[in-house]
Amino acid sequence: MQPAPLILAFDVFGTVVDWHGSISREVTALIPGEDGNAFATAWRAGYKPAMAEVRSGQLGWTKIDDLHRRILDQVLKARGHDLGEGQRQHLNRAWHRLAPWPDTIAGMQRLKAHFTLCTLSNGNLGLLANMAKHAGLPWDLILSAEVFRHYKPDPETYLGVAEVFDVRPAQVMLVASHEDDLDAAAACGLQTAYVSRPLEHGPGVTIRQGDLSRFTVAAHDFNDLADRLADLGGAGRTTPGQS
Amino acid sequence: MQPAPLILAFDVFGTVVDWHGSISREVTALIPGEDGNAFATAWRAGYKPAMAEVRSGQLGWTKIDDLHRRILDQVLKARGHDLGEGQRQHLNRAWHRLAPWPDTIAGMQRLKAHFTLCTLSNGNLGLLANMAKHAGLPWDLILSAEVFRHYKPDPETYLGVAEVFDVRPAQVMLVASHEDDLDAAAACGLQTAYVSRPLEHGPGVTIRQGDLSRFTVAAHDFNDLADRLADLGGAGRTTPGQS
Repeated sequence: MQPAPLILAFDVFGTVVDWHGSISREVTALIPGEDGNAFATAWRAGYKPAMAEVRSGQLGWTKIDDLHRRILDQVLKARGHDLGEGQRQHLNRAWHRLAPWPDTIAGMQRLKAHFTLCTLSNGNLGLLANMAKHAGLPWDLILSAEVFRHYKPDPETYLGVAEVFDVRPAQVMLVASHEDDLDAAAACGLQTAYVSRPLEHGPGVTIRQGDLSRFTVAAHDFNDLADRLADLGGAGRTTPGQS
Repeated sequence: MQPAPLILAFDVFGTVVDWHGSISREVTALIPGEDGNAFATAWRAGYKPAMAEVRSGQLGWTKIDDLHRRILDQVLKARGHDLGEGQRQHLNRAWHRLAPWPDTIAGMQRLKAHFTLCTLSNGNLGLLANMAKHAGLPWDLILSAEVFRHYKPDPETYLGVAEVFDVRPAQVMLVASHEDDLDAAAACGLQTAYVSRPLEHGPGVTIRQGDLSRFTVAAHDFNDLADRLADLGGAGRTTPGQS
C-alpha cells in the first residue's frame, strides 16, 4: 500500500462539474426549440480535436475560452442558428457557470480537511476561477494547462503539479472520471482516483468502464472518495507548511 | 471617477501578511538568543537584489523558495549560525506560514462579496497556496510571478492579471502597501489602492509616505478599503460568469 498522497489534483469538466447538463440547460434557455443534449454533445465533440491541434504545434497556445468559441461558431452554423455577438459571448461563458454534481461540494469540504486540493484542468485560469466563485468550489489552488502551457495528457501537466508543490509525483493523486487521463498520470508516477460519473454525457449514454483495479482507488462519488482516502490513512496528515 | 474595478489583485508580503513579525518569531524560536528583528530584516534585504538578477536575465527563472534559501544560507553564515539541512528547510518554509494582519481576513471576506480577489505576488504558487491554507485566506485565484515567468514590477505581471480574466487593465485594481508596486501598476493602466502597513518592517521603523493622492484610493487597512470601495460603487457588481 502506498502512503497517502499530500495533494489531490482534480480533473474538472465531468469530474467536478456537470458540463453536459449545464450546457444543455443554457442552450435550451437561449435557443427555444433547440435540442440542448445534442448541442452540448456537438460542442464538446470539438474539444479534443482542438486541443490536439495545440498539442501537435499546428496551432499556437490557445486558451480553452477561445477554442470553445471557435467550436461554438461552427456548431451554430452547422445547426442553422444565427446568434448575435453578445449572445455568442454569453453562451461561450456558460463554461464558467457549470454546476457541480450533487456530492461535489460536500465531498470537497471533507477532503480539504486532510489534503491540499487543486485543479488540474485544461480549462483556463479565468474560467476556473469564475466557475469556483460561481459554484462555491473550495480549491486551495487553481492549476491549469495555462500555467504549464501544455494540455493534458502531456506529462508536463501532471509533473507540473508535483513541481509547484515541491513534492514527489507519488505524493500527488489525480482525481478524474476519465480513464485515459488517469493512465497518463500513472505513467508519470502519480497516484490515481477514478470517480464514476455515469451521467457525464447526458441521459441514456452509457459510460464503458475498463478494469478499474489498475487505479489506486475507485469511488462512486466524492463522498465515497473521502471515505476511501480516510481508510488509506489520509486523515492523519499535518498542517501544510509544517515541514 | 473611474468605474469600480471587477478584479482586486493583492500584493501579499507586507500587504496581506506580516512577514517581519512572523519571520522574527520563527527565528527567535529556532535560534535562542538571536535577534529575530535583525535576522528578518537581513533576510528580506536580499530579496530585491535576488529578483533583480532574474529580471535582468543574469539568473534564469528561479522560484522565490529557492531565492529565499540562497539568501538564508548567506544570512546564517554572516551571523555565525550553523544549522543542519532539516532546520534550514524548516526555516525557509516559514514564508509559507506567515500570519495575516488582524484586519486581513475580515476585510477580504467583505471585499470577496463584491469583487474577484486574486494574489499578484512574487511568491511562488506552492508558497502562496500553503500560506492561504494555513492562514485561511479566501482567494478566488492565486496568481504569481511564476505564472507569468516575470517578477514585479515587470509589466507582464500587471497586464497578465487582465489577460487571465479577459478584462481591460482599468478593470483591475492592484492593492499594495508599496508605492513603487502601485506606480508600476498605474503605468500599465490598472487602478490602485494603497494600504498603510506601518509595522511592515517591524517596531520602530517608520515608513515614509509620498503623495498618496495619486492612487485611486488610499486606506488604513482592509476594512477601510472595503468601506471606500463600497463608496466607489463596487457593492453593485453582478455575479462573476454572468456576461
